[in-house]
Amino acid sequence: MLRTIYRATQTSARIGNTARLLAVRHASSGKVLTIETMHPLIKQAEYAVRGALPIRAEALSKQLKTDKTLGFDRVVFCNIGNPQQLNQKPITFFRQVASLCENPELLKAENRETLSKLYPADAISRAELLLKNIGSIGAYSHSKGIPAIRENVAKFIERRDGYPANPDHIFLTQGASSGVQTVIQMLTEHNKTGIMIPIPQYPLYSATLSLVDAVPVEYYLNEKAAWGLDIADLKRSVDSSRAKGVDVRALVIINPGNPTGQCLTEENMRQIIDFCHQERLVLLADEVYQTNIYQPESRPFHSFKKVLRSMGEKYHNQELFSFHSTSKGMVGECGRRGGYLECVNIDEAVLEQLYKIASISLCPNVHGQIMVDLMTNPPVEGDESYPQYKSEVDAIFGSLKRRAAKLAACFNNLEGATCNEAEGAMYLFPRITLSSKAIAAAKDAGMAPDAFYAMAMLESTGVCVVPGSGFGQESNTWHFRSTFLPEEHLFDDFCDKIVKFHKQFMGKYRD
Amino acid sequence: MLRTIYRATQTSARIGNTARLLAVRHASSGKVLTIETMHPLIKQAEYAVRGALPIRAEALSKQLKTDKTLGFDRVVFCNIGNPQQLNQKPITFFRQVASLCENPELLKAENRETLSKLYPADAISRAELLLKNIGSIGAYSHSKGIPAIRENVAKFIERRDGYPANPDHIFLTQGASSGVQTVIQMLTEHNKTGIMIPIPQYPLYSATLSLVDAVPVEYYLNEKAAWGLDIADLKRSVDSSRAKGVDVRALVIINPGNPTGQCLTEENMRQIIDFCHQERLVLLADEVYQTNIYQPESRPFHSFKKVLRSMGEKYHNQELFSFHSTSKGMVGECGRRGGYLECVNIDEAVLEQLYKIASISLCPNVHGQIMVDLMTNPPVEGDESYPQYKSEVDAIFGSLKRRAAKLAACFNNLEGATCNEAEGAMYLFPRITLSSKAIAAAKDAGMAPDAFYAMAMLESTGVCVVPGSGFGQESNTWHFRSTFLPEEHLFDDFCDKIVKFHKQFMGKYRD
Repeated sequence: MLRTIYRATQTSARIGNTARLLAVRHASSGKVLTIETMHPLIKQAEYAVRGALPIRAEALSKQLKTDKTLGFDRVVFCNIGNPQQLNQKPITFFRQVASLCENPELLKAENRETLSKLYPADAISRAELLLKNIGSIGAYSHSKGIPAIRENVAKFIERRDGYPANPDHIFLTQGASSGVQTVIQMLTEHNKTGIMIPIPQYPLYSATLSLVDAVPVEYYLNEKAAWGLDIADLKRSVDSSRAKGVDVRALVIINPGNPTGQCLTEENMRQIIDFCHQERLVLLADEVYQTNIYQPESRPFHSFKKVLRSMGEKYHNQELFSFHSTSKGMVGECGRRGGYLECVNIDEAVLEQLYKIASISLCPNVHGQIMVDLMTNPPVEGDESYPQYKSEVDAIFGSLKRRAAKLAACFNNLEGATCNEAEGAMYLFPRITLSSKAIAAAKDAGMAPDAFYAMAMLESTGVCVVPGSGFGQESNTWHFRSTFLPEEHLFDDFCDKIVKFHKQFMGKYRD
Repeated sequence: MLRTIYRATQTSARIGNTARLLAVRHASSGKVLTIETMHPLIKQAEYAVRGALPIRAEALSKQLKTDKTLGFDRVVFCNIGNPQQLNQKPITFFRQVASLCENPELLKAENRETLSKLYPADAISRAELLLKNIGSIGAYSHSKGIPAIRENVAKFIERRDGYPANPDHIFLTQGASSGVQTVIQMLTEHNKTGIMIPIPQYPLYSATLSLVDAVPVEYYLNEKAAWGLDIADLKRSVDSSRAKGVDVRALVIINPGNPTGQCLTEENMRQIIDFCHQERLVLLADEVYQTNIYQPESRPFHSFKKVLRSMGEKYHNQELFSFHSTSKGMVGECGRRGGYLECVNIDEAVLEQLYKIASISLCPNVHGQIMVDLMTNPPVEGDESYPQYKSEVDAIFGSLKRRAAKLAACFNNLEGATCNEAEGAMYLFPRITLSSKAIAAAKDAGMAPDAFYAMAMLESTGVCVVPGSGFGQESNTWHFRSTFLPEEHLFDDFCDKIVKFHKQFMGKYRD
């Protein structure tokens, strides 16, 4: 019986041997809360984007303040898509509006003349409109997010897709991550609940599945087909998991891909939706990179909502959650923790439960909500701030595109390395060949071979990337993920450092 | 065997009958994710502060926009400590600094002259200092929070307590709630892990225990002794739970109390710490109302950290988590979701795990972090902005104190009602006597008697309070929680409305 399996797994994973633990607890530090007595699922969760490599990078960064002998003058954090950390300039209009919402005293009549020297009129009127809808940004808002902002998001989705969106089905969230975590938890009825995730994947997914005790059901992206998605592979994966008693309920797609950068074709998306429909899977679409699209003619972005709606009546009941964020795109406002979640065809009783769970955390932070409003409703042609807005967005986009191409070329020129181009997102995920000698050295160091490579890169260049093992990869292949976010005027130097390091590493460990 | 108990509980609570669920799933809506198939612990969690009453209040608030026949002209949200929703003015200096961090363009040389007409020099220099430490507020920060801000928080704690604080043991959080949730989850090794909570309690605690499948171990606050805490009662509670096989690990204290408003004496706090030490319990101190102290001479605030440190070597290993927030006090910046968590005597390996779990959510929002910095390091005597800061804080404090006293008097004058005064926090929790007739009417309506009373109050006055049953109370006693946050110039009217409603209600349901 399945229930026996559940019991055995839960008992061993969550409970352990109480007597032994009590003994350990009293024997060691004398503490009640120790690594032995803490929540076992937290202990087992891993999150490589901020794992061992970044922790070492942080330490090096501190060391650099006093020690000039490291051979590099700064640590370059390419482990995380954090554009403003690497000096990407925020969009002026967004910050103007946000700063006025922060300090409404400036909007008083007596300050208007002075204010007009510092702010364009449309930023002022936009802030007034937001404050009228919000009240104070210092107050808790509606737990689903400010109603007027959810209405604006719905209009944005309608403009983007050409299909209606319901503001009541939109939840503003603290970045996309918190939306993803809530939905995955919601889907997890028991510890045999399976959720399909791509390999390689963004480790938020594996970490969250681990935390809620759900089963990751892995499907592989095909590196040789530009990280494309093969439906036969999805089918094999779901069948084999179900045969083992896993109750597979949902499929996660990251599009554009992270760490892989692919942008799905509309045809492929239709196949995926049809697959979910046939297999009775809720579709989770992580679409946070929807504006980071570098080949817009051949590989434009389509939302899963739009493709689903275009497929007609047969699919009218297909459940979909779509996630978006203010952290990516040309906005890059990561620190603000803004995002939204659209629920499509989700049961009303489940929506009520989502609302309840949101209410326990009171509300998403209001600054993040304001940025969602601005991101989804930026200045338009004819607005005073439009020319500046457009030129800033175009400049960031153009530079990202150039840097993506330059870094891919750099990686493809490395000995034994291959790298698919970025169709979207902010990352490249090159494959590297490591010698038996390097693999043996990694083993001696107690590290995965690609982690060993990445650590060597960090120590010799100050460049921090994330080893492929943090995202998952086909066995006996090695990769790393790097953002292409270092500043453009420093980018050649950045590439040179990697090239030089790679040559040395390959030389040192040649078989 | 304990393990058998665990199994049975987990199986029934988390899994249910899979075959039955599959049948339900296909039979009803055709959806995969339904109320029957969702995570059972989410379904069972309750959160009264934003429960049925506030949902009805929201609907009435909407209705008021077009319908003027309700008998009141606005809904007064006294269900939640949300001062700026009820028009409390934010602290000017804090908003000035935050707005400059939001728009660093203003700090450029060419804007300085104009800027000086709108901002005092110390707000400008404070923003410059923050930006120097942060970089851009649009970047993800360190997952534990910006190091310089954690250092400032540590200094604040040292000034407050007279004992050292370690910035590495401080985590900035999204409000206090997220810190509480993480720590409770961390403590929950298995589903027989018990955590002691006061009754009445703030429902974040019961909801979180429910979500992580831990056992609430209740102890009662003594209404007749001004909601004091009796150690003998704590002892009875822990003993009886342990006798039932519950593995009690921690004790939650809310001081000043929510919903009860008491402020603990130092003597009582020593007893509590000694109790935790003897019983091997981690102490969780919710100290978010530490500056809402209305009888500072007779009932000053002491932090548990300070009292613990003052008790000497014997207690040097006592584990303590203390929570603070930017949402309460005279700051009242709820929408910003700022807070911190200090870990005292917590195992280093557990701190690493807390860091890991923080990193999965990337970082607390940077705006909240800035407000933590400002709250813990406000202008001081001699600063240009100090006089205004002081007068604003004093005005808010004075008004809160007056309103607390006025509302307590109002409640104590109601037929059959008694109410302890607020020594601290933002709430009163009056006890009301309900007639058999009222209790029968509530039963007919399918509601708890105090929820029935609170709903009647809402429908007739527009005042939204939370029934005592949402916080827990001794059986067959009835209470409600109300903030005393309505604006002072409207306060008499607010009290009059309640008095009038209460008379009508008592008359209608007189036995």
